[in-house]
Amino acid sequence: MKRGGGLHKPMPDVAVVLVEPKVPGNVGAVARVMANFGFHDLVLVNPPRLGDPAYRRAKHGGTVLKEATRASSLEEALEGLDLAVGTTGVPSDAENAFHRHAVTPWELAAKLAPVEGRVGVLLGRENYGLYNEELDRLDLLVHVPCSPAYPIMNLSHAAAVLLYELSRAGGPPAGEPPRLASGAERERLHDAFREMLVAIRYPEHRRRRTEVLFRRLVGRAAPSKWEFHALMGVVRGATKAVTRRSEFPGSGPSS
Amino acid sequence: MKRGGGLHKPMPDVAVVLVEPKVPGNVGAVARVMANFGFHDLVLVNPPRLGDPAYRRAKHGGTVLKEATRASSLEEALEGLDLAVGTTGVPSDAENAFHRHAVTPWELAAKLAPVEGRVGVLLGRENYGLYNEELDRLDLLVHVPCSPAYPIMNLSHAAAVLLYELSRAGGPPAGEPPRLASGAERERLHDAFREMLVAIRYPEHRRRRTEVLFRRLVGRAAPSKWEFHALMGVVRGATKAVTRRSEFPGSGPSS
Repeated sequence: MKRGGGLHKPMPDVAVVLVEPKVPGNVGAVARVMANFGFHDLVLVNPPRLGDPAYRRAKHGGTVLKEATRASSLEEALEGLDLAVGTTGVPSDAENAFHRHAVTPWELAAKLAPVEGRVGVLLGRENYGLYNEELDRLDLLVHVPCSPAYPIMNLSHAAAVLLYELSRAGGPPAGEPPRLASGAERERLHDAFREMLVAIRYPEHRRRRTEVLFRRLVGRAAPSKWEFHALMGVVRGATKAVTRRSEFPGSGPSS
Repeated sequence: MKRGGGLHKPMPDVAVVLVEPKVPGNVGAVARVMANFGFHDLVLVNPPRLGDPAYRRAKHGGTVLKEATRASSLEEALEGLDLAVGTTGVPSDAENAFHRHAVTPWELAAKLAPVEGRVGVLLGRENYGLYNEELDRLDLLVHVPCSPAYPIMNLSHAAAVLLYELSRAGGPPAGEPPRLASGAERERLHDAFREMLVAIRYPEHRRRRTEVLFRRLVGRAAPSKWEFHALMGVVRGATKAVTRRSEFPGSGPSS
């Protein structure tokens, strides 16, 4: 069991993914605050060597550190996740609105409450965070609102705030939550969307960012399985209608 | 002025009071997270010598550290406060209910919102926290809900969570929120989606509920104006591709 027991039941299953952290002490501090909030699933992408400095900062979170899984690339880390959430220290503005449209930690907690599966919360390098090309691969972005005078938080402080919010949201939500589309299903939807853009001759130079935009919209909307199937029907239906190779079953002969 | 300027206006006037911290690095880390959340009023009761380790951890919060006021006793620190809030890592139970009846950080933020004057948030020693006889002198206690398996947080992590909550209550978060698509724009998108369903010969008996589904998804995703325009481009593009009446500008002749 990955999640903490007792009174404290974070849901969904949250993994903290540190992407190329540089400072061993920070990794240890993140492990500690994970243990504080009842999270135990730590993934390290190309971490530094973790020795005494990391374990000293981890304190009783040492087990989290010891049992952390390693990945040699972001891709490898993403493979095991049903939903990938990136943190960004830079809020959206006119310059980078496209890459960095982010929700607040409390909005994130509300969005994740009904999610089933393994959700990764990704934190980037101490100096540069996550690169734009990395952010583009993620489903959802979160930004901790900070003073504009100094918005760059320590890695473990950002983790503390996010895990605090996610553990707060840990109780069962009211009512029966809808079963959400899985990560694999959402990827199929993104593939189908890409094929549709090609089929409808959407301008090539705009495709990439439109695909990212669609990924973010889907990430924020968190579609149910039922919605996933309906969306697939529309997207594939559009592709088929254009390519005229096929048509909807039961819709009668096309003219 | 003690509080951070700009968009970020924590209210009331919050001072962070560290009571006999032992580790200089922790004091620096608290200064950093204060600067992150726009707080600048730090009080140190019998601190250790603050040298390089403290300033290295403070980073751009160095000014907060340098301008911290010192007190040689809890009494002296309390004199300048209109309300004193103590943090406790141990939740109340039958044994110590009297000493440690504490509110959550979000309850604290709600309670402090209407308070005028200078509110001190007191954090105790790394090992023992605040003593019962110290807690008894304070107006209010706060406890960050943690896993019962390991409820003792690092000093600066506890500060991060508390200041995050207090700054949330302070007004609009930093950063320029994206301008959302207006109601009229969203209606235009829904009209365009409906036309697309007709164009691609989406089965008639499923159209209505698919339109509602799309409306709900868009409602949950709350697209920005920029995202609205891009979505319109895709939906209209699909319609045009099917009806062959037109095509994207600059995409070359359709086959």
